[in-house]
Amino acid sequence: MSACIIVSPVEASAEAELAARLHVVDSDQPQVSVLDLGVTRGDGIFEVLGVINGKPQAVDAHLRRLGVSAAMLDLPKLDLEAIRAAIYQVVELAEKHDEFSVKVIVTRGIEGSGVATAWVLAFKAPDDFAAERAEGVKVVLLDRGYPHDIAARAPWLLAGAKTLSYAVNKAVLREAARRGADDVVFTSSDGYLLEGPSASLILKFGNKIWTPATAQGILPGTTQGAAFEYFADAGFATAQVLLRTEQLWDADAAWLTSSGRMLVPICEVDGRPIPVDHALTEAGNAALLARTN
Amino acid sequence: MSACIIVSPVEASAEAELAARLHVVDSDQPQVSVLDLGVTRGDGIFEVLGVINGKPQAVDAHLRRLGVSAAMLDLPKLDLEAIRAAIYQVVELAEKHDEFSVKVIVTRGIEGSGVATAWVLAFKAPDDFAAERAEGVKVVLLDRGYPHDIAARAPWLLAGAKTLSYAVNKAVLREAARRGADDVVFTSSDGYLLEGPSASLILKFGNKIWTPATAQGILPGTTQGAAFEYFADAGFATAQVLLRTEQLWDADAAWLTSSGRMLVPICEVDGRPIPVDHALTEAGNAALLARTN
Repeated sequence: MSACIIVSPVEASAEAELAARLHVVDSDQPQVSVLDLGVTRGDGIFEVLGVINGKPQAVDAHLRRLGVSAAMLDLPKLDLEAIRAAIYQVVELAEKHDEFSVKVIVTRGIEGSGVATAWVLAFKAPDDFAAERAEGVKVVLLDRGYPHDIAARAPWLLAGAKTLSYAVNKAVLREAARRGADDVVFTSSDGYLLEGPSASLILKFGNKIWTPATAQGILPGTTQGAAFEYFADAGFATAQVLLRTEQLWDADAAWLTSSGRMLVPICEVDGRPIPVDHALTEAGNAALLARTN
Repeated sequence: MSACIIVSPVEASAEAELAARLHVVDSDQPQVSVLDLGVTRGDGIFEVLGVINGKPQAVDAHLRRLGVSAAMLDLPKLDLEAIRAAIYQVVELAEKHDEFSVKVIVTRGIEGSGVATAWVLAFKAPDDFAAERAEGVKVVLLDRGYPHDIAARAPWLLAGAKTLSYAVNKAVLREAARRGADDVVFTSSDGYLLEGPSASLILKFGNKIWTPATAQGILPGTTQGAAFEYFADAGFATAQVLLRTEQLWDADAAWLTSSGRMLVPICEVDGRPIPVDHALTEAGNAALLARTN
């Protein structure tokens, strides 16, 4: 079902008419150069937006995060309005499903050109998110190798930027599968809970809803943000905090959250069951799936 | 000058005639899918070979390392003979220069296809390696964030695989430039010397020539290996060792080495000059540039 639009992504191009900055292309044909730093060096950034009932979700939050990633990678200042227009146009072009996704990719472009490359792509993820929301996922804890204060200490490691250099984020899923699990929660080398390779972590302790603080070099989750709005409206106290790994075992409930998953309960950690709050999961997902933007 | 050949890189394809597995393409036209995991996730591996007087160097060592990277990433077993044939063919196709490079890229392929993508590309690097060999480069020491024993402790972090996820390897060069330097030597979070973002490190102490041990999750340098053959023939004792960061200040000479650079002396570390052995550098480079394979 994939539909694709190539975008002129930098502010200088904003002088051209919007339509001249967007080019619908055939995603079944090659569109990327073998000289593009996105593929030769994973040197670029991305976002994945959920599209629910034809409406792309949290567009502002995704564009804001894309801009932060661009700044962390010293990419040119992006023309976020062209990218926004491309997102809405590719949603129109895409085959209709109740839920699908739009990926935005910006690379540093062809080596030596100094011109960034960007495209947006509508696609249907193969995952069965409805089943995961109902049944939960098994996770393993894997060390991300960095201490929790890495982002402040070594910004050149790009911790907290959503880059195309995600080989490790895929490798940990293979390690999880080898251990009989579905997904991963990264921990810092000094024993803090962080995030999944493509999801944020949310924990419930009584009337408190906590997520690991982004100061630890992790991504501000767009769907985690929307879920926190739901939880706050439902009377919970929400906060970004430092969470020791062992606190996971004291939680009343834990979720992975992302723009495709919404709230997926974690039912098992390192082979040991943890409590699942099915009622709260259903209520939260109903709210997230009823969003109009 | 780039010339490009797309290769069917997996062993199953070896049943086809070799010629049917290599496809010369136009590197100025897009050749990579927007759905290829190489570009969407940096999920692939690469090698860069030096070509001197028309002869690709250390082909066996590069193919061996490519195979190791493939295994670390759980890629399908590669048809290294097809890749070898593509390397020699692309060298023939390329515009002639005394020195140029061939990049080999293998990606996990289009998401969901299970079929790896590969290509080889001949190109002339913009760097002035002759000047660097004569004048040396200024480096800064930057923390790679991991302890020196990360590879054994957390193999899912892929330390020591040559992956396409090199955004950090590019970010550290920008950090070096901000600090007025040309290049970087990574250190471990617990104080050991590692490697550059695209080079190995070699140090000289009297009649000893040392390089950091690959057990620290760093790449076995193909040119470092060839340089060690030269140094051994010249009467030096060579070894892979653990080197504390502070030992750099006691070295008689230090070099970065890679398939493009050969031996480039380090003349300054974090703004402080270190000794350069011009005579040994010249003799070593003469030997490396006189190789026939």
